[in-house]
Amino acid sequence: MAIDIEHLAENFAKKIRIERAKRKLSQEKLAELSELHRTTISAIEREKFYPTIDNVAKIANALKLSIAELFDFNF
Amino acid sequence: MAIDIEHLAENFAKKIRIERAKRKLSQEKLAELSELHRTTISAIEREKFYPTIDNVAKIANALKLSIAELFDFNF
Repeated sequence: MAIDIEHLAENFAKKIRIERAKRKLSQEKLAELSELHRTTISAIEREKFYPTIDNVAKIANALKLSIAELFDFNF
Repeated sequence: MAIDIEHLAENFAKKIRIERAKRKLSQEKLAELSELHRTTISAIEREKFYPTIDNVAKIANALKLSIAELFDFNF
Protein backbone atom coordinates (compact mmCIF):
# COMPACT_ATOMS: atom_id res chain seq x y z
CA MET A 1 0.00 0.00 0.00
CA ALA A 2 1.31 3.42 -0.89
CA ILE A 3 2.50 5.68 1.90
CA ASP A 4 0.04 8.44 2.74
CA ILE A 5 2.26 11.46 2.16
CA GLU A 6 -0.50 13.95 2.89
CA HIS A 7 -0.69 12.75 6.51
CA LEU A 8 2.95 11.77 6.93
CA ALA A 9 4.05 14.68 9.14
CA GLU A 10 0.91 14.27 11.26
CA ASN A 11 1.31 10.50 11.61
CA PHE A 12 5.01 10.71 12.33
CA ALA A 13 4.44 13.39 14.97
CA LYS A 14 1.73 11.29 16.61
CA LYS A 15 3.94 8.20 16.56
CA ILE A 16 6.81 9.99 18.28
CA ARG A 17 4.47 11.41 20.94
CA ILE A 18 2.96 7.94 21.56
CA GLU A 19 6.29 6.12 21.77
CA ARG A 20 7.76 8.84 23.96
CA ALA A 21 4.76 8.67 26.30
CA LYS A 22 4.96 4.86 26.51
CA ARG A 23 8.51 5.22 27.78
CA LYS A 24 7.69 8.21 30.00
CA LEU A 25 10.36 10.25 28.24
CA SER A 26 10.27 14.05 28.12
CA GLN A 27 11.09 15.76 24.82
CA GLU A 28 14.35 16.80 26.46
CA LYS A 29 15.23 13.22 27.44
CA LEU A 30 14.39 11.84 24.00
CA ALA A 31 16.50 14.60 22.46
CA GLU A 32 19.40 13.65 24.73
CA LEU A 33 19.06 9.93 23.87
CA SER A 34 18.83 10.76 20.15
CA GLU A 35 21.66 13.28 20.26
CA LEU A 36 19.33 15.88 18.79
CA HIS A 37 18.34 19.30 20.04
CA ARG A 38 15.15 19.47 22.10
CA THR A 39 13.72 22.00 19.65
CA THR A 40 14.14 19.43 16.85
CA ILE A 41 11.97 16.90 18.72
CA SER A 42 9.50 19.64 19.58
CA ALA A 43 9.31 20.85 15.96
CA ILE A 44 8.75 17.30 14.65
CA GLU A 45 5.95 16.76 17.18
CA ARG A 46 4.36 20.06 16.15
CA GLU A 47 4.63 19.02 12.46
CA LYS A 48 6.84 22.01 11.69
CA PHE A 49 9.03 20.13 9.23
CA TYR A 50 9.84 16.77 7.74
CA PRO A 51 12.86 15.26 9.50
CA THR A 52 15.81 13.96 7.51
CA ILE A 53 16.50 10.22 7.57
CA ASP A 54 19.60 10.57 9.76
CA ASN A 55 17.50 12.25 12.46
CA VAL A 56 14.77 9.64 12.02
CA ALA A 57 17.37 6.90 12.46
CA LYS A 58 18.72 8.58 15.60
CA ILE A 59 15.20 8.74 17.07
CA ALA A 60 14.51 5.10 16.09
CA ASN A 61 17.72 4.00 17.80
CA ALA A 62 16.90 6.03 20.90
CA LEU A 63 13.45 4.40 21.08
CA LYS A 64 14.93 0.98 20.20
CA LEU A 65 12.59 0.69 17.22
CA SER A 66 13.33 -0.32 13.65
CA ILE A 67 12.53 2.07 10.81
CA ALA A 68 9.59 -0.20 9.94
CA GLU A 69 8.25 -0.01 13.51
CA LEU A 70 8.67 3.76 13.60
CA PHE A 71 6.65 4.12 10.39
CA ASP A 72 3.91 1.76 11.56
CA PHE A 73 1.02 4.18 11.96
CA ASN A 74 -1.60 1.66 13.05
CA PHE A 75 -2.28 3.61 16.22
CA MET B 1 19.43 -4.08 15.79
CA ALA B 2 20.31 -0.41 15.80
CA ILE B 3 20.40 1.44 12.51
CA ASP B 4 23.93 2.09 11.25
CA ILE B 5 23.80 5.88 10.98
CA GLU B 6 27.44 6.17 9.92
CA HIS B 7 26.67 4.30 6.68
CA LEU B 8 23.08 5.46 6.25
CA ALA B 9 23.64 7.90 3.36
CA GLU B 10 25.86 5.37 1.59
CA ASN B 11 23.42 2.47 2.08
CA PHE B 12 20.42 4.54 1.08
CA ALA B 13 22.19 5.78 -2.06
CA LYS B 14 23.15 2.23 -2.98
CA LYS B 15 19.61 0.99 -2.39
CA ILE B 16 18.10 3.64 -4.69
CA ARG B 17 20.64 2.88 -7.42
CA ILE B 18 19.92 -0.88 -7.15
CA GLU B 19 16.12 -0.54 -7.17
CA ARG B 20 16.27 1.98 -10.01
CA ALA B 21 18.52 -0.35 -12.05
CA LYS B 22 16.22 -3.34 -11.40
CA ARG B 23 13.39 -1.35 -12.97
CA LYS B 24 15.58 0.10 -15.73
CA LEU B 25 14.61 3.61 -14.66
CA SER B 26 16.82 6.63 -15.39
CA GLN B 27 17.31 9.19 -12.62
CA GLU B 28 15.08 11.47 -14.66
CA LYS B 29 12.30 8.89 -14.90
CA LEU B 30 12.46 8.08 -11.18
CA ALA B 31 12.36 11.81 -10.46
CA GLU B 32 9.28 12.15 -12.64
CA LEU B 33 7.53 9.18 -10.97
CA SER B 34 8.44 10.54 -7.51
CA GLU B 35 7.48 14.11 -8.37
CA LEU B 36 10.97 15.22 -7.34
CA HIS B 37 13.61 17.12 -9.27
CA ARG B 38 16.20 15.03 -11.08
CA THR B 39 18.96 16.80 -9.16
CA THR B 40 17.38 15.59 -5.89
CA ILE B 41 17.64 11.95 -6.99
CA SER B 42 21.15 12.58 -8.27
CA ALA B 43 22.24 14.24 -5.01
CA ILE B 44 20.80 11.38 -2.91
CA GLU B 45 22.66 8.84 -5.06
CA ARG B 46 25.88 10.81 -4.67
CA GLU B 47 25.32 10.96 -0.87
CA LYS B 48 25.21 14.74 -0.94
CA PHE B 49 22.52 15.02 1.72
CA TYR B 50 20.09 13.12 3.85
CA PRO B 51 16.63 13.20 2.27
CA THR B 52 13.59 14.24 4.27
CA ILE B 53 10.94 11.63 5.01
CA ASP B 54 8.41 13.14 2.60
CA ASN B 55 10.89 12.71 -0.25
CA VAL B 56 11.74 9.19 0.94
CA ALA B 57 8.03 8.35 0.95
CA LYS B 58 7.63 9.75 -2.58
CA ILE B 59 10.53 7.59 -3.80
CA ALA B 60 9.15 4.52 -2.00
CA ASN B 61 5.75 5.03 -3.62
CA ALA B 62 7.35 5.52 -7.04
CA LEU B 63 9.29 2.25 -6.60
CA LYS B 64 6.22 0.54 -5.08
CA LEU B 65 8.21 -0.33 -1.97
CA SER B 66 7.28 0.07 1.67
CA ILE B 67 9.46 2.18 3.95
CA ALA B 68 10.69 -1.08 5.53
CA GLU B 69 11.65 -2.47 2.11
CA LEU B 70 13.41 0.76 1.13
CA PHE B 71 15.50 0.62 4.33
CA ASP B 72 16.39 -3.05 3.90
CA PHE B 73 20.10 -2.81 3.17
CA ASN B 74 20.78 -6.55 2.84
CA PHE B 75 22.21 -6.09 -0.62
